Amino acid sequence: MSEIQDAHHHSDDVQLHLKEVQHLLARHRLIEGLVQRQDMPRHDLVENLVHKQHLAELDAKLDKLHPADIAYILESLPLDERQVVWEHVDAERDGEVLIELSDAVRESLIETMDQAALVAAAEQLDADELADLAPDLPSQVMEDVYLGMDAEEREQLRAAMSYPEDSVGALMDFDMVTVREDVTLEVVLRYLRRFDELPDHTDQLMVIDRKERLRGVLPIDRVLINDPEVEVGRIMLTEHLTLEPGDSADDAAKAFERYDLVTAPVVDAHHRLMGRLTVASVLDFVREQGEAELLSQAGLKEEEDIFAPIADSVRNRWRWLATNLVTAFIASRVIGAFEGSISRLVALAALMPIVAGIGGNSGNQTITMIVRAMAMGQVTPEHGRRLFRKEIGVSLFNGLLWGGLLGLIAWALYHDWRLGLVMTAAMTLNLLLAAVMGVTIPITMVRMGKDPALGSSVLITACTDSGGFFIFLGLATVFLM
Amino acid sequence: MSEIQDAHHHSDDVQLHLKEVQHLLARHRLIEGLVQRQDMPRHDLVENLVHKQHLAELDAKLDKLHPADIAYILESLPLDERQVVWEHVDAERDGEVLIELSDAVRESLIETMDQAALVAAAEQLDADELADLAPDLPSQVMEDVYLGMDAEEREQLRAAMSYPEDSVGALMDFDMVTVREDVTLEVVLRYLRRFDELPDHTDQLMVIDRKERLRGVLPIDRVLINDPEVEVGRIMLTEHLTLEPGDSADDAAKAFERYDLVTAPVVDAHHRLMGRLTVASVLDFVREQGEAELLSQAGLKEEEDIFAPIADSVRNRWRWLATNLVTAFIASRVIGAFEGSISRLVALAALMPIVAGIGGNSGNQTITMIVRAMAMGQVTPEHGRRLFRKEIGVSLFNGLLWGGLLGLIAWALYHDWRLGLVMTAAMTLNLLLAAVMGVTIPITMVRMGKDPALGSSVLITACTDSGGFFIFLGLATVFLM
Repeated sequence: MSEIQDAHHHSDDVQLHLKEVQHLLARHRLIEGLVQRQDMPRHDLVENLVHKQHLAELDAKLDKLHPADIAYILESLPLDERQVVWEHVDAERDGEVLIELSDAVRESLIETMDQAALVAAAEQLDADELADLAPDLPSQVMEDVYLGMDAEEREQLRAAMSYPEDSVGALMDFDMVTVREDVTLEVVLRYLRRFDELPDHTDQLMVIDRKERLRGVLPIDRVLINDPEVEVGRIMLTEHLTLEPGDSADDAAKAFERYDLVTAPVVDAHHRLMGRLTVASVLDFVREQGEAELLSQAGLKEEEDIFAPIADSVRNRWRWLATNLVTAFIASRVIGAFEGSISRLVALAALMPIVAGIGGNSGNQTITMIVRAMAMGQVTPEHGRRLFRKEIGVSLFNGLLWGGLLGLIAWALYHDWRLGLVMTAAMTLNLLLAAVMGVTIPITMVRMGKDPALGSSVLITACTDSGGFFIFLGLATVFLM
Repeated sequence: MSEIQDAHHHSDDVQLHLKEVQHLLARHRLIEGLVQRQDMPRHDLVENLVHKQHLAELDAKLDKLHPADIAYILESLPLDERQVVWEHVDAERDGEVLIELSDAVRESLIETMDQAALVAAAEQLDADELADLAPDLPSQVMEDVYLGMDAEEREQLRAAMSYPEDSVGALMDFDMVTVREDVTLEVVLRYLRRFDELPDHTDQLMVIDRKERLRGVLPIDRVLINDPEVEVGRIMLTEHLTLEPGDSADDAAKAFERYDLVTAPVVDAHHRLMGRLTVASVLDFVREQGEAELLSQAGLKEEEDIFAPIADSVRNRWRWLATNLVTAFIASRVIGAFEGSISRLVALAALMPIVAGIGGNSGNQTITMIVRAMAMGQVTPEHGRRLFRKEIGVSLFNGLLWGGLLGLIAWALYHDWRLGLVMTAAMTLNLLLAAVMGVTIPITMVRMGKDPALGSSVLITACTDSGGFFIFLGLATVFLM
């Protein structure tokens, strides 16, 4: 960080803001503690000058912060302190802070607000922001807000809410500058000077005709570089990315990445301009999507408020544990079927988890790679066979290598070369099973119209656990008993 | 998608491009096949008109595509077809395609290129792009390129290559528009008209003084909206995000997300302007980081070329399998220590994987949540104890619930209520172990200066496996034998 003290902001400033707020809260708590120990009546406390000063400092601090920074601080505080800070956020900024919050924390704050406060907060928002917030608001609040809107806003809200969460329609906004193609840049420049400020992320103006149909886009640098006499139609771009509200947000995000876009127009089926998608929404989407994938891999339904009550956490996590309990139980019954063999050769009990475990790891590696390639659209039916061959090759190699090693170790430990051979064979077969299922499971899930990123890891582990126990104990029963 | 045929691009066009190229390649292969079957000499083939036409179509197709689309197509093709397409990419575009490719695929193409072609490709790139490519290029190529650069470019290349991969310095570019604060907008507008085009993502001009120190930034919309008579210094922003090259790219990305930025200036320790960071680089970084985390969770060292030879895949994956083999072996030895108990009560062998498995799942849930909260900077030392209490509460609840259920099932299966009680106790204790380790492991890793996202999942599974077997078999030995 720069040694020079200046007004410029740094990327980790938010950590400092958090510390300052925590410091103010700590001093606030200290006084409350003193007051309580001395049984000072509550109204004296309110009169307490020092106390008032801390809260005034908190107000001043919060007023200076960006809504996203306030949201970050709220997410980082335990429930009681979060409530104190929330009460000190200027009511006029409630709306813009709420939309920056994670779902879990947002819910915890909305629960504490009354109807009037929620309506006031919601009314500060644009239609696209309100659409994000709507699912968390009581329906009575939404009705009140809706009644206060004009026809255009209602239409925008309706449009934004009618598209599924992961579509372009749910992410688009409606704030943009439109121009006609038959005017000169001179006219455009005069028009722009009438704005107090341009909408965020205005890197291009949308060129539309009288029926609001999109004719092209005019990058802002072309407005600056070209002669004011030039007509818009002569310098606008007609080859550019156009989105429709039903397009997948994921495809749109990939297009933004590929072409380094800042904004893209969104049009309806008649090519009428509806809104635009900005890179800010895309960036949020990509981050959230990455996190959702990580969370779902550990069986967490959604992002958890780290200070959530135990009951909320249990609810967020129970589904995966229950599923795993069922698959573990099935694996346990597979072992149960071979109890006779195990009682005769107890070494089997010690060795069997190795076979199952390595199969699970290898299968997860295959499935991660395939799911990723499928998400990129790089797995076509013709490639299926090629991928199969490759994964089987990798497994065969790993099975013989690691299985061989483990076989030698089993031989050395139990002085039984036949047990070593069974170990090697079982490892190799289970790794082959892992490879086959690692390719088959995601391809089948996609054919069935399901998202292979969700749950395929649980499925493969179930296969390689039960399969591994069956292969190892089965081979042992046939060849060693 | 729109029914109207138009010149506008859609977000999934790249899939169509891929199909077209594959179609051209298929026809190309068909003819090669015919030729080979008829033992037609190779030079006749080259003369073959139809063949030539297909390749000409391929050339024409590739010439029209964006470099990022060509990169996507190359990544989606098996090695032999990839090579055919790569040879047909216009040599003048080799550089811009190479920087869009994933590391693994880029290496596969660089291997096939000769020195002269590589130098030519590298020379097309800006200093910041070249810095990305440099690690993959032979040193002789880099020397040749370096000799051909002017002093400023050499300095930029040196700067870009001197910062670690995950720092702002490694992501910044040097292409931007600078102005002085004492000139009027009139002058700025005249200056801008001298450009053929502004650098990509020019949403603000950098205001510097005679010593190149950053004085502020001038958003492009302020240039458009304000009167041409106004001086830059009066309308520039002095409160804005400023980065330094040593700043963490992750912090910078979070700041871009929070404040919805398009670009931010990068300055050195003396506040001299060095370059800027664009949202395009941030978006790439966020996507790559999310993917790296997913891959590392499955123990894949890096993104894999799905068509890589088996040997490359084995190399990419062996580390994790080896680690897991060691931890599985330790768990196996824990079981081995209780072989006496298992031989007397073989039901233990069937039930023990359930205890270990559920512990692993629960521990992974805890660790995923903690690692995520730590990445957001939301876990402070004061919160450690609070998180402990919460996770232990969740585990105790889950242990008693699921452990109780499994205890009942064990009782029903084996008609031994004491075995049921041991099962319940072992499940509860192993879930508590999972909670304690799930909080302790990532916090310890961070204290030791390591990235908790890497390897903490392997560690927790090792604990809950060996720990689970030990707790269950230990309790059984004490109370049932």
